[in-house]
Amino acid sequence: MTSITKAACIGGGVIGGGWIARFLLAGIDVAVFDPHPEAKRIVAEVMANAERAYAMLTGAPLPARGTLVFCETLEEAVSDADWIQESVPERLDLKRGVLNKIDAAAKPDALIGSSTSGLLPTDLQRDMQHPERLFVAHPYNPVYLLPLVEIVGGEKTSPETIKAAIDRLGPIGMKGVHIAREIEAFVGDRLLEALWREALWLIKDDICTVETLDDVIRYSFGLRWAQMGLFQTYRIAGGEAGMRHFLAQFGPCLQWPWTKLTDVVDLDDALVEKIGQQSDEQANGLSIRELERIRDENLVGILQSLKGGNGGEGWGAGKLLKDFEQSLWAKGSVASEPDLSRPLRLVDTKVSPAWVDYNGHMTEHRYLQVFGDTTDALLRLIGVDLAYVEAGHSYYTVETHIRHIGEAKLGQAIHATCQVLSTDDKRLHVFHTIHDTATGDTIATAEQMLLHVNSAAGKTVAAPTDILAKLRPIADAHAALAAPDGAGRQVGQKK
Amino acid sequence: MTSITKAACIGGGVIGGGWIARFLLAGIDVAVFDPHPEAKRIVAEVMANAERAYAMLTGAPLPARGTLVFCETLEEAVSDADWIQESVPERLDLKRGVLNKIDAAAKPDALIGSSTSGLLPTDLQRDMQHPERLFVAHPYNPVYLLPLVEIVGGEKTSPETIKAAIDRLGPIGMKGVHIAREIEAFVGDRLLEALWREALWLIKDDICTVETLDDVIRYSFGLRWAQMGLFQTYRIAGGEAGMRHFLAQFGPCLQWPWTKLTDVVDLDDALVEKIGQQSDEQANGLSIRELERIRDENLVGILQSLKGGNGGEGWGAGKLLKDFEQSLWAKGSVASEPDLSRPLRLVDTKVSPAWVDYNGHMTEHRYLQVFGDTTDALLRLIGVDLAYVEAGHSYYTVETHIRHIGEAKLGQAIHATCQVLSTDDKRLHVFHTIHDTATGDTIATAEQMLLHVNSAAGKTVAAPTDILAKLRPIADAHAALAAPDGAGRQVGQKK
Repeated sequence: MTSITKAACIGGGVIGGGWIARFLLAGIDVAVFDPHPEAKRIVAEVMANAERAYAMLTGAPLPARGTLVFCETLEEAVSDADWIQESVPERLDLKRGVLNKIDAAAKPDALIGSSTSGLLPTDLQRDMQHPERLFVAHPYNPVYLLPLVEIVGGEKTSPETIKAAIDRLGPIGMKGVHIAREIEAFVGDRLLEALWREALWLIKDDICTVETLDDVIRYSFGLRWAQMGLFQTYRIAGGEAGMRHFLAQFGPCLQWPWTKLTDVVDLDDALVEKIGQQSDEQANGLSIRELERIRDENLVGILQSLKGGNGGEGWGAGKLLKDFEQSLWAKGSVASEPDLSRPLRLVDTKVSPAWVDYNGHMTEHRYLQVFGDTTDALLRLIGVDLAYVEAGHSYYTVETHIRHIGEAKLGQAIHATCQVLSTDDKRLHVFHTIHDTATGDTIATAEQMLLHVNSAAGKTVAAPTDILAKLRPIADAHAALAAPDGAGRQVGQKK
Repeated sequence: MTSITKAACIGGGVIGGGWIARFLLAGIDVAVFDPHPEAKRIVAEVMANAERAYAMLTGAPLPARGTLVFCETLEEAVSDADWIQESVPERLDLKRGVLNKIDAAAKPDALIGSSTSGLLPTDLQRDMQHPERLFVAHPYNPVYLLPLVEIVGGEKTSPETIKAAIDRLGPIGMKGVHIAREIEAFVGDRLLEALWREALWLIKDDICTVETLDDVIRYSFGLRWAQMGLFQTYRIAGGEAGMRHFLAQFGPCLQWPWTKLTDVVDLDDALVEKIGQQSDEQANGLSIRELERIRDENLVGILQSLKGGNGGEGWGAGKLLKDFEQSLWAKGSVASEPDLSRPLRLVDTKVSPAWVDYNGHMTEHRYLQVFGDTTDALLRLIGVDLAYVEAGHSYYTVETHIRHIGEAKLGQAIHATCQVLSTDDKRLHVFHTIHDTATGDTIATAEQMLLHVNSAAGKTVAAPTDILAKLRPIADAHAALAAPDGAGRQVGQKK
């Protein structure tokens, strides 16, 4: 897959800011042009949310964050970008003007995506000199977490542009979906509008409140749709007889006079106020910021759970996350030059909401998860990366001794260090420590013994010389360090 | 909350079978009447899926499964039930006939729910002698995992019936949502029908394929709706200005001529075949059974992730799962009479898809999760249950020594046993073993030291006499057992 080297974002609101965060966290430099006086503040807020979410989303080594530059002119922002994303307000004349300017100032081979949620690419590209590289790239909020981008070409858009756009979204963890024919609102917003119209009638007619309506969705088909969407879900509903049977059974219902879709609800002051009041009650005092935080945490949790789906292969958006992480691991396996004069600092993280019990304390097994991540980081440092493991060898943990000295709490910044205690051609004996990052205090320690194995044979075998050559300098340097307090102890041993 | 003591299910297809599984797994006896020759097979298949899902869904102690009886007559099935659920085919005359029979044979105070997805309760109850206890209880497939039940009363339904119905769904892990006014298809299917109509047009007009349409949903708003539904999501989209601002901004779009909702798509043979073919391609060879399995695993994962949401409080369907589990723990904390002549068998589970790495092996920290569950089960046995912990005292783990002997794999049945090694008034020293349930072989062991603490003060204190009185007989009996292989070892110690 081709990667984006430099991105430009024209417009930095919630959507533009989401694109900026997506690019920066994937290690891509971004130049922004947005004359709005609050643009920097809005982008900084979105970026803070995105960084918080990514810290919970993945333990894979994120690349060094890209550089963010706010430019004085549109021309300066786009001049050397190979992906330019337009996210200005939803008015055809305004977007046309901006796109024409981009067209004039961009590199000839730059891709130009528009975030429009409804306008036709044919209309947008009408006056461009190089309209073949313009396409709709319609994302969903929050752009840094939701993977979907609807890719829609206009009459003058080249097939190569569509293909290149989809290719370049993969490495930033996004899913480009090609909409075959351009229509206003594309696919997602068409579906949303249909449901939205009906929802407004249900509220207006007092069939239910907004909270009840949301509950109906989130306790039922919302859970199904997060993983399979509409048709695949109905395929299952059809049973062994399948989709055709389902259609035969369910199709006729369409003739029933159920929905009020043929009428347009009058969204007058009374209805706006009714929905506004019910929504206030539903929010139950939670601010938008709090709701955003909860939403992002839930999205992270759902994405992580789908990552384990389909027998560990990953499913839907979780498969995408898995692929993204594997690309990060692949890039992250390049050894750096660590400081060997002290234990290696290998993991920096925050205690995720998914990791705590109802008291807000980190759950016992999550300590071992952090220690496991620490071991993984050490292994990558000595060349035992994903490719190595997939080729048939690995280090397996055979013993772990954990001591709890303090407690980690929700949101607390923690980091883990590793001291190599001893090693030979098969064995790797390590001592990890989880620290409170603010104070440096020890929260927990883990002593681990690992063995180098042939995974398929399930047998312990000597590690190859290139791995040992990377491991030995660390072990030799750490041999000079004092033995850590707590090493070599059994459970319940007196101090 | 009031509990259902005995349930009757009239009709045992996919929906009726789902209700049966829901009741049985909550420990409720169920009598079934269904004249369909394949009824037993269909119910058994749904039950197998449900048991598999519950084994992954929760580590809480499920009650002893209820007793399932197939009856020869409807009257026999309903005679002593306090919740009767009708799930026969969707024809008014048929349903009326069945409900009138139920009405005549049921106990006077029995609640009668209909699974209809569209018929009005006023029409259903027209000829009943005691129509005040009839309501629609419309669930979603799979009923054993999706919590939603739309509760809709007819003109003659009493408010007490509605309240009682919602109350009794809580203890079986379901969410009864009251729809204020009866309309055909209620709320969920109204929304689904609106979206479905539009989806059919998008396929018919070749805007996209069914796979693309599903991808549009599951990579974007499906992920949002699993947790927040429609209005709360849009409240966030409105930003600090809130819901009223969002409506002002988005409302006018309704006037745009986007959707084709005013037309009814002709679901002719050509369109059915087109959708059928595209759906076959999308399924990519996966059978309905395989898709069901994947769906259930994903639902389990999503529910579990939402359980950790909102800072560990639980969110949406995850909050409901948490409440359900807490009720299970509360019931499960009643001490049984365990066999003390051997290590206590405290946890039985299957390796969940959320627990494995990409090789299908159980991830390292999940072993500690199972060991932690084992410790929790021991603590409940000696009276250290949720109420005890909330009152301010608990046992905290201070040390753990894990040895990996074998490997647990996806779907494998495993169980954990516990031998108490020693104890005094503050200390509890235990040795857990995870076994392969099929062979009894040891997969992993954990030696743990726990201390009894005053949680608020963070200080070790002596456990009260009633706790010690329950602990000592176990410790005394286990003192007669041989010391387990691997106890008292440090990491790397020679055998």
